[in-house]
Amino acid sequence: MNEKAELNFEKMGGLLPAIVQDGATGEVLMLAFMNREAWELTLATGEAHYYSRTRDQIWHKGGTSGNVQRVLEIYLDCDQDTVLLKVEQVGGAACHTGHRSCFHRRRQGEGWQVVGAPIFDPKEVYGK
Amino acid sequence: MNEKAELNFEKMGGLLPAIVQDGATGEVLMLAFMNREAWELTLATGEAHYYSRTRDQIWHKGGTSGNVQRVLEIYLDCDQDTVLLKVEQVGGAACHTGHRSCFHRRRQGEGWQVVGAPIFDPKEVYGK
Repeated sequence: MNEKAELNFEKMGGLLPAIVQDGATGEVLMLAFMNREAWELTLATGEAHYYSRTRDQIWHKGGTSGNVQRVLEIYLDCDQDTVLLKVEQVGGAACHTGHRSCFHRRRQGEGWQVVGAPIFDPKEVYGK
Repeated sequence: MNEKAELNFEKMGGLLPAIVQDGATGEVLMLAFMNREAWELTLATGEAHYYSRTRDQIWHKGGTSGNVQRVLEIYLDCDQDTVLLKVEQVGGAACHTGHRSCFHRRRQGEGWQVVGAPIFDPKEVYGK
């Protein structure tokens, strides 16, 4: 059965959270937000587009560096207010710090422990 | 190195998104939100607590049914405004529909295809 389902952008004032997961390893890479335009650009191009809340504009992830996210599968949650993207992360790292995942700090005691090492040097990719 | 990092609850007006992942399979189960109280209850009890936006109150996931989420690991993202919980989902299903994951509909063509079958009958767990 192929059902229609309207995404609920209203719950967060026009934005929908998108969880991004590596399609090969299952590692959760990041959380971002989409407005309707970003959603439609993602569907149309097969590459993840988000809405940058800090820059207040559409954000084609990896659009300048080439480290785009190729969308393999999209899942919708039960109340239609969150999507899950399974992607191929070109370049291997989703995080601007050079780490594979934005979630590279693990809770330990009262603080956080960095897990793994960056796979690129952010200065080389983004400049200083 | 064990670093201190303050969670940023301000970006979403007191709430922090929490991605919930099955610690054994890597399947993404759900997205929920925590306020500071839910975060502290999660740390103190080792069981996931969220903030229900629709009911406007703390939500101890599985608190009445017994299908709690035992927190195995917690990760923090690079800008400290999202957490990732790796959990053991008691009872096997995180979704109120009886599906293992809330993300049980996959994009296909212009619509959505239900993937897998529920593992419990919601009527038996929640009543009618």
